[in-house]
Amino acid sequence: MRIDLNADVGESFGTFTIGEDEKLFLNITSANIACGFHAGDFNVMQATVKSAKEHGVAVGAHPGYPDLQGFGRRELKMTPSEVYNSVVYQIGALKQFCEIHGVPLQHVKPHGALYNAAASDKTIAEAVAKAVHDAAPDSILFGLCNSELVEAGKRLGLKTASEAFADRQYTDEGKLTSRLMPNAVLRTYEEILDQVKEIVFHQRVKTASGNWVSLKADTICFHGDGQNVAHHTAQIREALEKEGVKVLQVGITDDSSI
Amino acid sequence: MRIDLNADVGESFGTFTIGEDEKLFLNITSANIACGFHAGDFNVMQATVKSAKEHGVAVGAHPGYPDLQGFGRRELKMTPSEVYNSVVYQIGALKQFCEIHGVPLQHVKPHGALYNAAASDKTIAEAVAKAVHDAAPDSILFGLCNSELVEAGKRLGLKTASEAFADRQYTDEGKLTSRLMPNAVLRTYEEILDQVKEIVFHQRVKTASGNWVSLKADTICFHGDGQNVAHHTAQIREALEKEGVKVLQVGITDDSSI
Amino acid sequence: MRIDLNADVGESFGTFTIGEDEKLFLNITSANIACGFHAGDFNVMQATVKSAKEHGVAVGAHPGYPDLQGFGRRELKMTPSEVYNSVVYQIGALKQFCEIHGVPLQHVKPHGALYNAAASDKTIAEAVAKAVHDAAPDSILFGLCNSELVEAGKRLGLKTASEAFADRQYTDEGKLTSRLMPNAVLRTYEEILDQVKEIVFHQRVKTASGNWVSLKADTICFHGDGQNVAHHTAQIREALEKEGVKVLQVGITDDSSI
Amino acid sequence: MRIDLNADVGESFGTFTIGEDEKLFLNITSANIACGFHAGDFNVMQATVKSAKEHGVAVGAHPGYPDLQGFGRRELKMTPSEVYNSVVYQIGALKQFCEIHGVPLQHVKPHGALYNAAASDKTIAEAVAKAVHDAAPDSILFGLCNSELVEAGKRLGLKTASEAFADRQYTDEGKLTSRLMPNAVLRTYEEILDQVKEIVFHQRVKTASGNWVSLKADTICFHGDGQNVAHHTAQIREALEKEGVKVLQVGITDDSSI
Repeated sequence: MRIDLNADVGESFGTFTIGEDEKLFLNITSANIACGFHAGDFNVMQATVKSAKEHGVAVGAHPGYPDLQGFGRRELKMTPSEVYNSVVYQIGALKQFCEIHGVPLQHVKPHGALYNAAASDKTIAEAVAKAVHDAAPDSILFGLCNSELVEAGKRLGLKTASEAFADRQYTDEGKLTSRLMPNAVLRTYEEILDQVKEIVFHQRVKTASGNWVSLKADTICFHGDGQNVAHHTAQIREALEKEGVKVLQVGITDDSSI
Repeated sequence: MRIDLNADVGESFGTFTIGEDEKLFLNITSANIACGFHAGDFNVMQATVKSAKEHGVAVGAHPGYPDLQGFGRRELKMTPSEVYNSVVYQIGALKQFCEIHGVPLQHVKPHGALYNAAASDKTIAEAVAKAVHDAAPDSILFGLCNSELVEAGKRLGLKTASEAFADRQYTDEGKLTSRLMPNAVLRTYEEILDQVKEIVFHQRVKTASGNWVSLKADTICFHGDGQNVAHHTAQIREALEKEGVKVLQVGITDDSSI
Repeated sequence: MRIDLNADVGESFGTFTIGEDEKLFLNITSANIACGFHAGDFNVMQATVKSAKEHGVAVGAHPGYPDLQGFGRRELKMTPSEVYNSVVYQIGALKQFCEIHGVPLQHVKPHGALYNAAASDKTIAEAVAKAVHDAAPDSILFGLCNSELVEAGKRLGLKTASEAFADRQYTDEGKLTSRLMPNAVLRTYEEILDQVKEIVFHQRVKTASGNWVSLKADTICFHGDGQNVAHHTAQIREALEKEGVKVLQVGITDDSSI
Repeated sequence: MRIDLNADVGESFGTFTIGEDEKLFLNITSANIACGFHAGDFNVMQATVKSAKEHGVAVGAHPGYPDLQGFGRRELKMTPSEVYNSVVYQIGALKQFCEIHGVPLQHVKPHGALYNAAASDKTIAEAVAKAVHDAAPDSILFGLCNSELVEAGKRLGLKTASEAFADRQYTDEGKLTSRLMPNAVLRTYEEILDQVKEIVFHQRVKTASGNWVSLKADTICFHGDGQNVAHHTAQIREALEKEGVKVLQVGITDDSSI
C-alpha cells in the first residue's frame, strides 16, 4: 500500500507570509507551488523550488485564477481559452525555476476555484488538461477523484493522479463542501486522521450527511494554510507508516528506484 | 552591410489595445514581446507569438518592472535578486508560448526603466544578464550600445546585440534622453530616417545638443507605441534596402542559411 | 418628453487609452467615470472629473469588479459584503475628486458584470444599493430597467434612474444579450437610432428574437468603447432634439432650474 | 508632558494577514490605516476603521505607492502630479469608511518609500501636502521630524505633527537608516524603550554612529509588523504613564475635552 502526500506551498507574497512550508517539507512528498496569480511571487517561487529540492520533495505547478485578493478561491468566469493561456503561462514560469534548480516538474494541480471548476465543468477541465498536455506533457495532472479534470487528462493521454483531501468535508456527490459552509474544513487531528485512514485503507470518505462515498486516491492533500497543518501532517505520516503504508512521491513509478 | 529591425509588440492588455503589431510584423525582423508585467497578458502573449511566427519574425522576451500603470517606465527600486527572479519568471512564461508554437526564443531585451537601469547600473545589468544566462543561455541579450548590460552579458559568455533607437534622442553620453524631456522622441519621418541612416552607415547619432556620438548597432528599435510607427518602419526598411542594406534577424549568423 | 444620455468614460489606464471621452462629452449629459478597479486610475479620474465639469456633464461613479484584465466584464463571485465594501471604496475615491473640483456626485452606476449581477441577483443588488445609500445618499442609483437593482434602491429610499442601452441587443426577458453572443452589440447607426427612438417614444425595444419588450427608461447608455460612439451619439442627440425631445441630466428635476 | 502613540494597521490583504491590530488598538492613540495600494483592501479598511472606532483610537489615512508586492517600501519614481492624485484617491477611499462609521479623519501619514521621499524631496513633499490640503484640510499631516513634508504642510497652513520612530535607527542627519542596513530596526524592548524615553524626555535620539540628533516629536510610531510590537507598545505606554507622561491623541488639543 502506498500514498503520496501533497500540500500547497509557496503561497507567501512579498511581505505577506503564509504557511509553514519548511515544516511541511519534512513530511510531504509532493509540493504544489503557487505561480504568482492567486498567491506566490517570483521571489517566493525561486526560494520554494530551491527548498523543495533540498528536502527531496517533488515539485508541482499550482496555477490559479489571477485574483490575489481572493486567493484564487472566488469563481472568475474566464473562457476556456483564457484558462488555457493562463495555465500555460503559469506552468512556464514555474518550470523555469525548476530548470534553474535542475528539478523536474513532477505535476500540475490547479488551485482553488479553478480546481473546482475543472472538477465539474468539462470545458474548463479540457482547457486545463490541454494546457498541461502542451506545456508539461511529461508531468502528472492532479485532479479531484472522479472529476472531469482527471477524465480530460486521460483522454489526452496524460498521466493523472486522483486526489483526496485530508481536511475537507465531502458532499454525497463526492465533491468538496463549499468553503462558505461552516463545516467545510475539518479542524481536529482525530477527524483528519480518521478521514486519511478511510481514504488509504478503505478508499472512501464519510460525507457531511454521514454517508460513505468511495474514492480511490493516489495522493492526499494537506492544506498549507490550515491550522497546525505541519504538525498534523507529521503525525499522520508517522501513523500511516506505522501501519505499513509507503509514503512515496506519486511520480516514482518503480519502488526499486528509491 | 546588414541590420536587424526590432520593435516592442504584444503590449496590449485585456481590452486595452496598444500598437499596430500586425503592420509592424511586415517589416521588422525581431519582436520584443511583453511578458505580462509592464504590459501584455497571457492571451496577448499567446496571440503575439503565434503571429510573429506566421510573419517569420524572430521572437524575443521583453521583461519589465511589475508596473502596469506606469508601463514599466517608472523606476522601481528592486534589489538585484528581485530583478533576477522577475526576469527569470518572465522569460519562462514567454518561452512556454514559444515552445508551444515551436519557435526559438531568439533574444531577451529588458523594457523601459529596467532597460535604462541595466544600461547604467552594473548590479542591475548583472542581475538581468545572469537571468538570461540561467533561463535562456542560447538566446541573444539585447542592450543599449556601450551599456553595462552588454558588458555584463559578454562577461557571462552570452551572445549580445547592441541596440540603437530609431526615434529616441540621445545625450552626449550616448544615453537616451529622458522621456520627461520635450524632445525625447523624434516625431517626423525625416528625423527618424536621418538617425537610422547615420546609425547604419556611419555608426553614429547626433545628440540633443548637436554633437555626434558613435555607436555600433546590431539592431535598431522602432517603438511599438510611436505615432505612425508601422508606416515609418516600412518606409525606412525600403529606403535601407534600396541602398543595399540587408535587413536580417540578428540571430541569423550565416547568410547562406536564408 | 425628456431623456438623459449617459456613457462610460474615464476608462483609460496609465498609457492604455480607451474611448473618445472629449468628443462624447459634447453630447452626453451624464458621465459614468471608472474608479480604478475594472478601468481608470487616479490620474485618469482626476482628468475626467475635471473635463466633465468643464463640459457641464454630470458626474457619476462607475464601480466595477477588481478585474482590470477582464475590464470588469467577467463574473467574479464576491460575497455581498465584499461587493458592498468595494463599492463604498470606489465611490469614496471618486467623490474625493468631485469634492476637489466642486461638482456633486450625481449618480452611481455599477459596471459590466457587477451591473449584470446587480440586475438579476437580489443579494448583490442590495449590497450595491446599500453601498450607495451609505456612501452617497443624495445621488441617483442607475440600474437596468425592471432590475433587482432599481428595486433594491427604491426599498432603501434612494432616487433611482432606469437605464436602457442604445446599442445592446435585448433578450425577451428584457435583459442584455450576453457579450459572448454574436449580435450582443448593435453596430450600425440605423439600428442604434431605431432602438433609441423606440425607447424614447414608445418605451420598448425589439429583442433578438424579434419580439417587443417594454421598458421605461430615464437614461440611455452609449458605450464609451463602441465604434464611432461619439459620432453616433452626436447624430442621435440631434435627431432626438429635432423631434422635440429634451436631452437633460437625469439629476435635474425642475426644468426651470436650467 | 504628552505624547501620541501611532502604529500602522489594517495592512492585511485578502487572506494574507499581517499584524496584531486588535492588541495594538489597546495601547496606541492614533492608527495609520492602509488604503489598498501598498497594503490593505476594502474589506480590511472597513473592519479596521470599525475596530479603531470601538477602541477609541483616532483614524488616519496611510497612503502608499501602488506596490503591494513591495509593501510600498520600494522607491517608485512617480511624478509629483501622480503622487498628488494617488494620495487624493487613497484619502477619499478611507474617508468614505470614516464617514460610514461616523469618525473623523484625524490625520494623514504617507507610508514607506513615499514617506521617505516626502521627507527629503521637496516636490514630493509638496505634492503630498497639497493632496492633504485639498482632500482633508482639517486633518493633521504626520511627517518625519525636521522633514520637507512637515515644512510643506506648514506652508499650506495645515496642522502638522512631527513623528519619531520607536524602533528605527536614525542616521546622523536625523533620517531613518535604510531598511537594507542590518541595524535599521531595533529589536529588543530595552533598546526601544530607551529610544522612546530619549524622544519624550530629551527630544533626541542616539544615531547608528553613537551621536545624538535632536528631534521634537508630537507622535511616536510603533511598526505594526514589528516583532512583539503590541507587547512592547503596552509596556512602553505603561512605563511612560508611570513617569507622568500623558498618552493622548495628537488631535486632541484641549486636555479638558477628555
